[in-house]
Amino acid sequence: MSTHSERLRTWAGTLADITGALALLDWDRDTMMPSSAADARGQQIATLAVLHHRELMRPEFGEIVAARAADPDAAPSARREAQLLAHRRERAERVSEALVRELSEAASEALAVWTDARERGDWDSLRGPLGRLVALKRHEAQAISGGHDLYDALLDEHEPGAHAAELAPIFTELAERLSPLVASGTAQPPPTLPQRDWPRAAQLQLAHDVAALIGFDLTAGRIGESAHPFSSSSGLGDVRFATRIDERNPISNVLSVLHEAGHAMYEQGFDPDYARTMLWDAPSLSAHEAQARFWENHVGGALEFWRIIEPRMRELFPAAMRGLDAGDFHAATATVCPSLVRVEADEVTYNLHIVLRFELEQALITGALDVRDLPEAWNARMDELLGVVPDSPADGVMQDVHWADGLFGYFPTYTLGNLYAAQLAATADVALGGLSAAIADGGFADILGFMRTRIHRHGALYPTAELMERATGVPLGADMLIAHLERRTRASASTRGTD
Amino acid sequence: MSTHSERLRTWAGTLADITGALALLDWDRDTMMPSSAADARGQQIATLAVLHHRELMRPEFGEIVAARAADPDAAPSARREAQLLAHRRERAERVSEALVRELSEAASEALAVWTDARERGDWDSLRGPLGRLVALKRHEAQAISGGHDLYDALLDEHEPGAHAAELAPIFTELAERLSPLVASGTAQPPPTLPQRDWPRAAQLQLAHDVAALIGFDLTAGRIGESAHPFSSSSGLGDVRFATRIDERNPISNVLSVLHEAGHAMYEQGFDPDYARTMLWDAPSLSAHEAQARFWENHVGGALEFWRIIEPRMRELFPAAMRGLDAGDFHAATATVCPSLVRVEADEVTYNLHIVLRFELEQALITGALDVRDLPEAWNARMDELLGVVPDSPADGVMQDVHWADGLFGYFPTYTLGNLYAAQLAATADVALGGLSAAIADGGFADILGFMRTRIHRHGALYPTAELMERATGVPLGADMLIAHLERRTRASASTRGTD
Repeated sequence: MSTHSERLRTWAGTLADITGALALLDWDRDTMMPSSAADARGQQIATLAVLHHRELMRPEFGEIVAARAADPDAAPSARREAQLLAHRRERAERVSEALVRELSEAASEALAVWTDARERGDWDSLRGPLGRLVALKRHEAQAISGGHDLYDALLDEHEPGAHAAELAPIFTELAERLSPLVASGTAQPPPTLPQRDWPRAAQLQLAHDVAALIGFDLTAGRIGESAHPFSSSSGLGDVRFATRIDERNPISNVLSVLHEAGHAMYEQGFDPDYARTMLWDAPSLSAHEAQARFWENHVGGALEFWRIIEPRMRELFPAAMRGLDAGDFHAATATVCPSLVRVEADEVTYNLHIVLRFELEQALITGALDVRDLPEAWNARMDELLGVVPDSPADGVMQDVHWADGLFGYFPTYTLGNLYAAQLAATADVALGGLSAAIADGGFADILGFMRTRIHRHGALYPTAELMERATGVPLGADMLIAHLERRTRASASTRGTD
Repeated sequence: MSTHSERLRTWAGTLADITGALALLDWDRDTMMPSSAADARGQQIATLAVLHHRELMRPEFGEIVAARAADPDAAPSARREAQLLAHRRERAERVSEALVRELSEAASEALAVWTDARERGDWDSLRGPLGRLVALKRHEAQAISGGHDLYDALLDEHEPGAHAAELAPIFTELAERLSPLVASGTAQPPPTLPQRDWPRAAQLQLAHDVAALIGFDLTAGRIGESAHPFSSSSGLGDVRFATRIDERNPISNVLSVLHEAGHAMYEQGFDPDYARTMLWDAPSLSAHEAQARFWENHVGGALEFWRIIEPRMRELFPAAMRGLDAGDFHAATATVCPSLVRVEADEVTYNLHIVLRFELEQALITGALDVRDLPEAWNARMDELLGVVPDSPADGVMQDVHWADGLFGYFPTYTLGNLYAAQLAATADVALGGLSAAIADGGFADILGFMRTRIHRHGALYPTAELMERATGVPLGADMLIAHLERRTRASASTRGTD
């Protein structure tokens, strides 16, 4: 007869294995799979989701988990894992296997339609599948919420313990404090690079070089290509990310690599003892996003970073780099100007894109907004928040994959990640004796070491707020992000002045 | 209340989804995964194997399946699927979940050790893991056999209904009739191509071109690279294969493509209505192998084939092709000469490599041979059968992945595939008015059409012997293969004569 601890270990391992297999099925779908296999892959993902649900709900673990979660004598890591398992069970037991399958299949269908219809802005094709998916997500929210806020029931999956009512004032404050920065922007698009060729193969090499430079372990990971950059971890020793390559411009590739390698290095930094446990994870998406944003915005936003990689870019792109230097790339990333597409937005207006989505997805889930009316609502709010309106749904309501993938309550974690990233950067700045100086010295091992020690190794041991307060000494707030963005906009203005 | 038919459909679909996910996990492991993830992937594969076993054993389906399998009024395809499910259940119910996991983990461990140790011929590292795996396979065979032949219990997984006692005389006859052909061979290695560079990127392009030429649907498949060529199907619309690229020689790539595309086109040709059923499969490995061997040996062995692709090779390899033509490639594939490595063996001696493995793996599973004594037994029998003895286990007992991957009872299906391929080729020769002429005309669509109609579309609807007799009109026998090999050796002699 094995002990409760051993049985829990085996059980959590089984759950982790299914999750890891699902991560691989997703990775492959988005980087390699022929589109003709969308239906078959959707069925496979739905089946594994159902098996995960069934495994999570195995009745014999109910009491064991509850006892361990409440046991003051259990090791903190064991108790925390039991609490996480209990919470997952509590959510799962309110959702039927049939709904798990329907949700997964509906998301696969909407995702496949979106993938096909997005570029031509074909909203009419997406409306039906997205409407069915939203209806199912509302069913799920109703089942989980127990009479409480519907949106919170979905938000909790991505940001455990968060409440929309607590996030709303943070977002409102942020939007108010950002508006002078938006107003002080040039309202001109960033200076464009001359139209030149940045060949795909050399850009892929650059992706590997930049990732290795900042500390991504290529012997325990892979870099792929995808229209939509993402990172993916199927288990210990295998963390991957996909970058986006535009042969007319290398900047989105470099920033994608910083962002996704930020996610991926986080996963590579979990305590290996946590492998195949619930602790081998970030405590929430905002914690994950904070790592990505730190590398993308606080490292990639530094002129010193572009100076470090400039020589390598000159080797890889001898023709395209003629007459260009680090300052040109830095200037192209530092301009503040309202624009239509979130993933191309500057750091200041980016958060207004999130405010828009946070509002609209709450309205969809509560039922205040019908999917049919979504494009109009999108365009109207874009006009109010950013003063720009898309010509096509491709640059409007259809630009993001999230909703078509069934991800509601996900977007706010991006801005929470920006807030935490700024607090981490400010802390690192003190701890390292100047973050810019560390970057200028190529001290990426020190920067990564700071994150490893304060954040990565802990995995999901602490809830996000506790993890971040242990790391930075301060509670969540907007001051550090505002200060960072003020510096960025000043730097942008000064770069423009000397250009 | 859903009908029995609907419940069976859902259940078989779930089983197919898990199998498809496992295929993808294997594909990724062998083409892309960092080796640091071997343990994690092994756990994931073991977990999915256990979940498949558990799903297969769900008690509520026992009576439904048995009733359907015996129902004379059921549609033939429904009855056949029920029979296949009943047979799989019957095997599975004799094996515990714990043994399923142990077997899967032991195979993952031995495979990882083999991958690392093979090239340096490090038998000492492999001996332990392989010994544990063989012991577990013997446990499995004992559990399944019910007192009957232990080896047959494993053979049945790959070649349902086959018995070693029935295969042995076929193999003995074949070995006897091959010996004059071996004796008439040059006993000289094939004429080598001049040492030139055949760049990887151009070879990968050639792989795509050759695959497309013979009818592999690249919009519903992928081609990857691996040290060990293989094909893999994760479901409808997604069939893949990996080729091996040697930058010193393009021949192994071309023959690998013909072989693996042969497997892959078979899977692309199953009746789509069979997707997510037990019928979306070959009835056995020998049927599968027959397709691969047909394209590799009966198409790739034709001078006309090399003439068809010669112009494209000249475009892709302008330097390396200087002074070479189709005859040189054909000659390099047609020589008969005993050699050490199965996958590099000529068509005649190849079958003697299989005889060796068929004998040794029977001895391992029955317990007549201990894994410790395997290298000596290998070398002694190589000397008897082929007159050559390897210097290193790398070219001897460690050359194949199969045993380290837990595959026992698999090797004989290669020679059975050769026998069936020759019978199919002889039938196609009549049906198409000359196979060589069809190849010379580039009539690959007609050749594929013949296979689609006679073999592919049926999936697993008929047992292998019935499928083949319907397709060729004759029972399994060695005559056609011997006749083919006699023509090949004559062609080889004549090519040498004019060279």
